[in-house]
Amino acid sequence: MTEKNHKKIITLTTDFGHGDAYVGVMKGVIFSLAPSANIIDLSHQISAQNILQAAYLIQANYRYFPQGTIHLVVVDPEVGSQRKIILLLHDSHLFLAPDNGILSLLLQKKTQQKAYFVDSPALYLQPVSQTFHGRDIFAPVAAHLASGNDPANIGPEVGLEELTTLCLPDVTIDRTTHQIIGAIINIDHFGNIITNITIEKIAQLSPNLHKVHATIGQYTFQTMQKNYSSVAPGQTIMIINSTDSLEIAINQGNAATKYKACINDKVTLSIC
Amino acid sequence: MTEKNHKKIITLTTDFGHGDAYVGVMKGVIFSLAPSANIIDLSHQISAQNILQAAYLIQANYRYFPQGTIHLVVVDPEVGSQRKIILLLHDSHLFLAPDNGILSLLLQKKTQQKAYFVDSPALYLQPVSQTFHGRDIFAPVAAHLASGNDPANIGPEVGLEELTTLCLPDVTIDRTTHQIIGAIINIDHFGNIITNITIEKIAQLSPNLHKVHATIGQYTFQTMQKNYSSVAPGQTIMIINSTDSLEIAINQGNAATKYKACINDKVTLSIC
Amino acid sequence: MTEKNHKKIITLTTDFGHGDAYVGVMKGVIFSLAPSANIIDLSHQISAQNILQAAYLIQANYRYFPQGTIHLVVVDPEVGSQRKIILLLHDSHLFLAPDNGILSLLLQKKTQQKAYFVDSPALYLQPVSQTFHGRDIFAPVAAHLASGNDPANIGPEVGLEELTTLCLPDVTIDRTTHQIIGAIINIDHFGNIITNITIEKIAQLSPNLHKVHATIGQYTFQTMQKNYSSVAPGQTIMIINSTDSLEIAINQGNAATKYKACINDKVTLSIC
Repeated sequence: MTEKNHKKIITLTTDFGHGDAYVGVMKGVIFSLAPSANIIDLSHQISAQNILQAAYLIQANYRYFPQGTIHLVVVDPEVGSQRKIILLLHDSHLFLAPDNGILSLLLQKKTQQKAYFVDSPALYLQPVSQTFHGRDIFAPVAAHLASGNDPANIGPEVGLEELTTLCLPDVTIDRTTHQIIGAIINIDHFGNIITNITIEKIAQLSPNLHKVHATIGQYTFQTMQKNYSSVAPGQTIMIINSTDSLEIAINQGNAATKYKACINDKVTLSIC
Repeated sequence: MTEKNHKKIITLTTDFGHGDAYVGVMKGVIFSLAPSANIIDLSHQISAQNILQAAYLIQANYRYFPQGTIHLVVVDPEVGSQRKIILLLHDSHLFLAPDNGILSLLLQKKTQQKAYFVDSPALYLQPVSQTFHGRDIFAPVAAHLASGNDPANIGPEVGLEELTTLCLPDVTIDRTTHQIIGAIINIDHFGNIITNITIEKIAQLSPNLHKVHATIGQYTFQTMQKNYSSVAPGQTIMIINSTDSLEIAINQGNAATKYKACINDKVTLSIC
Repeated sequence: MTEKNHKKIITLTTDFGHGDAYVGVMKGVIFSLAPSANIIDLSHQISAQNILQAAYLIQANYRYFPQGTIHLVVVDPEVGSQRKIILLLHDSHLFLAPDNGILSLLLQKKTQQKAYFVDSPALYLQPVSQTFHGRDIFAPVAAHLASGNDPANIGPEVGLEELTTLCLPDVTIDRTTHQIIGAIINIDHFGNIITNITIEKIAQLSPNLHKVHATIGQYTFQTMQKNYSSVAPGQTIMIINSTDSLEIAINQGNAATKYKACINDKVTLSIC
């Protein structure tokens, strides 16, 4: 989205949950230092230590925020160790995250990017704890950036090739068997099964969306529809969802439960 | 509440849950277009596709926000189909919702109301997805209204009688048996059992609140109290709650679990 | 944190959960009266009626907010009874809570404090319900304070010794057996087991953190580490956490589940 004149937005993506005060305390620290920031929760229900889930979530959703938004992505099992913290500039957005691969899907893009290792102890809450850098490092650094300070002053620039990346589930196109092999990357709140097979990948194999079927485990799905209510309640469909990815859904039902689908399960898309 | 000079408030009521980025993304879109809006979560834990639950929630709670507040109510199983989106002006508040009956309880009021079908594609996020109008239509239209644009420009005015309404659980007064027959409409976080039998209905049958008893399934409740702690912990009471409705509660306990109460269960109130 | 020039912050700590509109309605009331307030959720997942859990949470976390912040702490099983509502001034923060012991841990501090009984019916939402003072009393009083009104005008000053306090789980040092006896006071979202044994207490018994072991029920813990990832995933450690308290954790695992730990369980720390 294009920027209009407004308060700097900071988004938060963590595995902290809502029960403890961890999220609220990060906001307290940010507002103490950058009182006019506008903090938005993206999700705090990333599964504990699930870096891959957070990687997909931030990649799919950051673009709906104004340019200049600062995205904190704190799923950080190695907090307090020697792991670095990085600031990535990508597509006119700023991403602040542990260097644990959580920004891998952004790093795959061939856009102009810059990255810095965060190294500004003068900004941190002292003493820095070994278990909660969200509060002691991420929050004050985000506040510093939200106050208009230059990202280039946050620490030394680092080559993108030096950053940690994840082994991501592949999407492979097999032109012999006319198949795309992908994986389930998310189960949403409604039980919709979201895959990493995008409409662009499908277009490379078949010009006609309606001539494909998908297989997950023992189940095969045939019916591609435009929206959930194209079929009767309880019926199963394939759909290209709001992030342009293949999704298996049940109208007013829970597909993941019915088909015992799990994140990382293999998905095969074939030409009919 | 009366309006004071302030930022426009937008409330959000959805069945999106907190685990995905759906809610955060809607906020990103709104703040991109209306940077000074003030967005408040009313609930994102409406049961999936439960239009009736959302209808009760918005009707009971909108009035605690300032006049001019824009309420987005997005429980929308038919997203992407031919169902319309409506803007309702009621009691100096604005309600933006799918035309699926979710505003039925407001439409029952005999106040001066106006309604419009939303039809302003120039405002929408393009391309409009078939599965996430919260992001692509509701959010930008709400931002447009929050920026001070005239509701009358959002689309054609529509007669109130043309809007979809729900079959609502009846509350009937039987003067022969001296009974009111209603239903459970909500189980709250504490397990309190909330009915659609209001103090006004009871007053039509009995001038004395303390001369009534209620029956749900095999259970009968006798003791009307003013507050939860009027009885010992673990004791069950009837109470007129903060929305002026009959509620069954256990002091520091969970009444819904103990009495196996479910939404839509029949509730009978009788004169003792 | 030191105060910078900004909008008044109000934090909310309740046992209301996120499913109902209770929290959103409190915000609606506050913003109706104090449009420029900045409301931050600290937690709404305090266990129902668990005053002690809220007492620990607010004591450990209030200090990360700017001076002058107003903290609403509404776990209030006696709502509607004769119990009072208090305003406590402590450490340049304001705390608004039922007089049920929920501020006990703050009252233990030997700092300069002032307390008032809230008695300003002219501010309340009328009619005041007997079951939801969060909406009808706490919210408007907080808005009144956020608008810059003098706390001393909210009601009569009260001696600190008149306030209700909780029986708090003791931490006792036994110099004969070289043991500290404490308790589990929280299980966090990750399953980390948080005790009331602070680093200060341990320092009174042993100058060397690495010469202690802890026992909970049948389990003994030996390894004190600086951060979770000092050991392999699945390994158990002791750690001094971000609130300077002894914590038992499993790297990328759930210690509370594995060791069947519950809040209030006894924890014994011994010199090796």
